[in-house]
Amino acid sequence: MYVVLDFETTGLDYKSEQIIEIGAVKLDQWFQEIGTFHTMVALSEHRSLPEKITELTGITELALMEGMNEVVALNMLKDFIGNDIVVAQFASFDLGFLSKVTEPELFICTRSMSQLLNPGEPASLKDLVARYDVELSGHHRSMNDVKATIEVFKAMKLRADVAMLPYTNLLFSSEERPLKFIPVNAVVANLEGYIESQKAKESESDAAEEESKEEQ
Amino acid sequence: MYVVLDFETTGLDYKSEQIIEIGAVKLDQWFQEIGTFHTMVALSEHRSLPEKITELTGITELALMEGMNEVVALNMLKDFIGNDIVVAQFASFDLGFLSKVTEPELFICTRSMSQLLNPGEPASLKDLVARYDVELSGHHRSMNDVKATIEVFKAMKLRADVAMLPYTNLLFSSEERPLKFIPVNAVVANLEGYIESQKAKESESDAAEEESKEEQ
Repeated sequence: MYVVLDFETTGLDYKSEQIIEIGAVKLDQWFQEIGTFHTMVALSEHRSLPEKITELTGITELALMEGMNEVVALNMLKDFIGNDIVVAQFASFDLGFLSKVTEPELFICTRSMSQLLNPGEPASLKDLVARYDVELSGHHRSMNDVKATIEVFKAMKLRADVAMLPYTNLLFSSEERPLKFIPVNAVVANLEGYIESQKAKESESDAAEEESKEEQ
Repeated sequence: MYVVLDFETTGLDYKSEQIIEIGAVKLDQWFQEIGTFHTMVALSEHRSLPEKITELTGITELALMEGMNEVVALNMLKDFIGNDIVVAQFASFDLGFLSKVTEPELFICTRSMSQLLNPGEPASLKDLVARYDVELSGHHRSMNDVKATIEVFKAMKLRADVAMLPYTNLLFSSEERPLKFIPVNAVVANLEGYIESQKAKESESDAAEEESKEEQ
């Protein structure tokens, strides 16, 4: 049903950087964990690991020495995903790296889901775990981030389904953080525009409420 | 370096049965965990799960419903293994099922390793975790068994390396439990014969000790 995934990488740009760690969990329709795939990915020849990545993740070059080849690991991940819906925090990032081997038909970006539910509110994984009271220890290690993403995804899915908000394949783009990669089938929405429209709706409904109060 | 793996299956015979759960952990040369792969495997059409397997493992047909296709999962495992040495408790069993897609060049059977170190002693995973004081909760679920196998493997490898015993690709066959599958490159030894030879060696060295005592 779903594969929730997270990559650690040597840097932000999927065109020039590479994956160093893959974490992925497969969930069935009842959110039961029915599979996991985790691997360290070896640095390709002549590439070194930027110090700031070691600082951020705790991952060292030594830990990658016997890691899998990136393309072999990504092809395993492709098979693991099959026809499932890919779920990721800031999916544009991970789907960019994944696009070296495949592009899923369906995906859900938990960052965009948060922006849909709470327009204008901060929407990083750190913000989401705080909002939904989810534990996240060892942030920026792929399996830890995947486990936290699963929990915030479950919390937001309940809310979004009740409100009938359309989150599948949705990506918000903002002037502050434009999308480096736009996946096939993505529905790209402008975040600033959405926030404006929501504000307008709110003040409309506030006005209507005021009016109905006056009428009572 | 190593991929330690364990399968749960619908039955004992790799020719007529299928895998229902795969657990595998990749270790580097320092025994650091650098990858994991776990998946439930869907039952092939018209196959049902024997009740005794549910009793043994706790795995139900419902839990397999969205599992991976067996061949897709086995091919993922093949990529995961790469050129690593496959380690398994009673490797003949797991390598039989794995032979649907691949046969590793190098493997280590922890059951045979135990028989090599302690000829005549019981050598099931339950016996080994008791001998080496390893925790095994939830026996007969693949990831639990893999984790226990890693620990007993580490304990036995130390001992076998010190004693310079050759355990790579070694399989003991016994009249009581003949091998259903003999992997390519396997060195098959007769357990009863080995026990006899070890006893003979022991009594020889006992006799030599007696003699040397008498001489003193």
